Amino acid sequence: MQSKISYSDKPALEYLFHPRSIAIVGVSSNMEKWNSGREFLESLICADFKGKLYPVGLDGSEIYGLTIYPSIKDVPDTVDYVILAIPAQYTPQLITDCADKGVKAIHMFTAGFSEIGDEEERQLESQIATIARQNGIRIIGPNCLGLHYPKAGLAFHPELPTESGSIGFCSQSGGNADYAIYVGGISGVYFSKVISYGNACDLNEADFLEYLTHDPESKIITIYIEGVKDGRRFFQALRQAAKVKPVIVYKGGTTESGSRAAASHTGTIAGSATIWSSLLRQAGAIQVDNMEEMLDMILLFNFMSPPKGKNTAVLGIGGGFSVLAADACSNAGLTLPRLPTEMRQQLEDIYTSEAGGSFKNPVDMYWQRPSLFQQAIKMVADYDQFDLLMIHIPFLFVTKANLNMLKEYTGAITNLAEGINNRTAVVLHSITSLEARQVASEVESMLHKAGFAVYPSVSRAANAMSKFLQYHQQHQMKFIKNNPTEAQT
Amino acid sequence: MQSKISYSDKPALEYLFHPRSIAIVGVSSNMEKWNSGREFLESLICADFKGKLYPVGLDGSEIYGLTIYPSIKDVPDTVDYVILAIPAQYTPQLITDCADKGVKAIHMFTAGFSEIGDEEERQLESQIATIARQNGIRIIGPNCLGLHYPKAGLAFHPELPTESGSIGFCSQSGGNADYAIYVGGISGVYFSKVISYGNACDLNEADFLEYLTHDPESKIITIYIEGVKDGRRFFQALRQAAKVKPVIVYKGGTTESGSRAAASHTGTIAGSATIWSSLLRQAGAIQVDNMEEMLDMILLFNFMSPPKGKNTAVLGIGGGFSVLAADACSNAGLTLPRLPTEMRQQLEDIYTSEAGGSFKNPVDMYWQRPSLFQQAIKMVADYDQFDLLMIHIPFLFVTKANLNMLKEYTGAITNLAEGINNRTAVVLHSITSLEARQVASEVESMLHKAGFAVYPSVSRAANAMSKFLQYHQQHQMKFIKNNPTEAQT
Repeated sequence: MQSKISYSDKPALEYLFHPRSIAIVGVSSNMEKWNSGREFLESLICADFKGKLYPVGLDGSEIYGLTIYPSIKDVPDTVDYVILAIPAQYTPQLITDCADKGVKAIHMFTAGFSEIGDEEERQLESQIATIARQNGIRIIGPNCLGLHYPKAGLAFHPELPTESGSIGFCSQSGGNADYAIYVGGISGVYFSKVISYGNACDLNEADFLEYLTHDPESKIITIYIEGVKDGRRFFQALRQAAKVKPVIVYKGGTTESGSRAAASHTGTIAGSATIWSSLLRQAGAIQVDNMEEMLDMILLFNFMSPPKGKNTAVLGIGGGFSVLAADACSNAGLTLPRLPTEMRQQLEDIYTSEAGGSFKNPVDMYWQRPSLFQQAIKMVADYDQFDLLMIHIPFLFVTKANLNMLKEYTGAITNLAEGINNRTAVVLHSITSLEARQVASEVESMLHKAGFAVYPSVSRAANAMSKFLQYHQQHQMKFIKNNPTEAQT
Repeated sequence: MQSKISYSDKPALEYLFHPRSIAIVGVSSNMEKWNSGREFLESLICADFKGKLYPVGLDGSEIYGLTIYPSIKDVPDTVDYVILAIPAQYTPQLITDCADKGVKAIHMFTAGFSEIGDEEERQLESQIATIARQNGIRIIGPNCLGLHYPKAGLAFHPELPTESGSIGFCSQSGGNADYAIYVGGISGVYFSKVISYGNACDLNEADFLEYLTHDPESKIITIYIEGVKDGRRFFQALRQAAKVKPVIVYKGGTTESGSRAAASHTGTIAGSATIWSSLLRQAGAIQVDNMEEMLDMILLFNFMSPPKGKNTAVLGIGGGFSVLAADACSNAGLTLPRLPTEMRQQLEDIYTSEAGGSFKNPVDMYWQRPSLFQQAIKMVADYDQFDLLMIHIPFLFVTKANLNMLKEYTGAITNLAEGINNRTAVVLHSITSLEARQVASEVESMLHKAGFAVYPSVSRAANAMSKFLQYHQQHQMKFIKNNPTEAQT
């Protein structure tokens, strides 16, 4: 259904992700004090970077069995890629040294440039960009985390998951990049490549977006952006990207004070919320309002198939929670057709006790037996009128006594995985105590392995499903418009 | 500022909360099988109910050292209050037996009445209401959890916190009542009395609302409602309540399918969203859209003073997170005035390193030293232009190494408690791993003890603060309008 793209030619920036050697400048061996250079070194070691690593720093000793060289010029090897983590005022000299050394690309972690908002720092940033350009060096940053590419052993932090996935993320903020990788990992989705690019004094959002558009390892593109360097080029790149892959964009700094924060954060001019929304819509991108929503959308692209329509069955435990779930789905624009009378009767027959229960849609099954839960879900899922399913389970009271019961209820869902996981969102909600969190984490992991998207609230699941459906409907319409004959087949 | 109310006369339903003896009907001593009657008995024992407890059930043995009587008529004592947890078809006879026994009030946990949606069950509900009325017995329910009043040892579940607080909650749903008590407990707020009233065949939402209006133990009233029995009376009661206390209302079943779910849940007709919103606004109640938002609002009424205005200072860690926080505050209608140049300069002087940082407002302090964090917060808080403060800390990477650091950062906030806790929302966000959750729970508890409202996201904190401010501004205006002379003083 999507336009073809040729991956025969490697994208222009491919070499950035495959350095043979990396020098980290600003490494201290004094373990008493936190040091950003050393943390980058540790990240590369933990991520199992296969090339050579050369720490550079002023205390001339050793660290993790590696010599710390006093200067980049002393490294007895060619250096492809440099991570700079030294105070801003020393960076022009360092870049000149890198040029002498034949370095191809520099990731500048160092902050204290245009984001300060003063002329002096702005000029310093302009100066380093000029030195780099004159010497054929590309810069990522300054004021960013650089590249995270677990497949090649490039990583932001030692603590981040090192699994590889199919989501490319281009993030102006390092914190949001960390957040996505971390929360993605516990939600069962992994990234192909994440680029934290900060102030973008040389390589910018358009460069990375074009790269991800042509990157065969990235099936979905996500973007966190505060402001653009060249609006026209960015929106052209975005339109092109959205033609070939789903592109999810979170635009930060859309309010006056958010825009001021963005200026202080990455030195960019953020632009008005309305203009951005309309430009993103025109480009065919999916706009989200925060990082949670970005992850919510990623989950569906990762686990679900394009839905045929908006008919949704809601099944779960708890009368009040069922009302909430039905309201959330309806408010998000999904429809809940009633179950046919015959099926309702069958469900009433298998569920019978002094506690409540309701079998219209939403279906409230309260706590009875996991086998009945499974039977009811199967019955509803087999009925061919539902495009989407939402199954919700509360984790209010988790005790040693009911801990296994919660696992059995989850088992009732995973038993049905093959038939339903590509159209079902599972909601594990009302997770309150630490014990409940522990059990929820375990069963969430069972559900991911069985191919289910899992959400912490019915409203987040409902909103994501609705946006996912809208995206596919719009793309289907575009495709039919552009390919009137092919669409028949 | 609020109208006076006399508490000299006890509210009409006060006796419900002070039974001298309770019979629980439907208790089984077979520990192999879950039994709702036994759970109510356990709840009362755990909550340390001081009166007499009389289990009634068919297997005529003992439980927890108490005789299980075969019938309510066999109990060798007067019975003030009965909890019914037996199948629906036996309830008419049981209520007749209760009448013979001189019972004053019955909580009917039993479901299977009007919420089924069929004529037969509707008539059964009408029949039990008639029997009760004819015999001067009041019914709470059916299809509900009844009364939770920790001070007198009345409790819904053994697992719920038994601390007493000052929030009264009248909830048509038992699940939402449980949720509020549980989540309230871990958020540092406690309830005075919680009433789960279900189908309301006799005592209804208006009765309980009038009760809570006159209850001196309840300083704030919260309501979860699906539909009303007598609209006119309810809105009169609501207007009256909102004159004397803050009243927070979550109306469930506002959509077509949510309304259908509400009908199946508690047998009520839910009514349109627009009509409800306008009626709630006219009554002076605060409408919330879900249980999370209800808790978010309760936190502010519990921990904060009425704010003077909307000028907000946002302080925290992380550039991207600061942009997000500024956007969230602005979108919620709060304003973020810039820090004066002199203060900005002072902050820049104390914070200096190769990592970022920004000191306009939002103030991004990144990880440096807890003492600097405290110094900066104090400096901004002392500046007399800010009505509200938001302090945000990410919990992305929690390791053994930085666990203590997070506690120290929290300590930096609690050290300043006295001067700032009545106008500050603390946001502990991006809590991802179980270790992070554990540490976050510990520091959250430190913050509650120091009198701070704590939120899991900047947008939830910002929205709650904005709604809180609006409430106080409207009430201030009403007060000035009604008391033109007093308002001068």
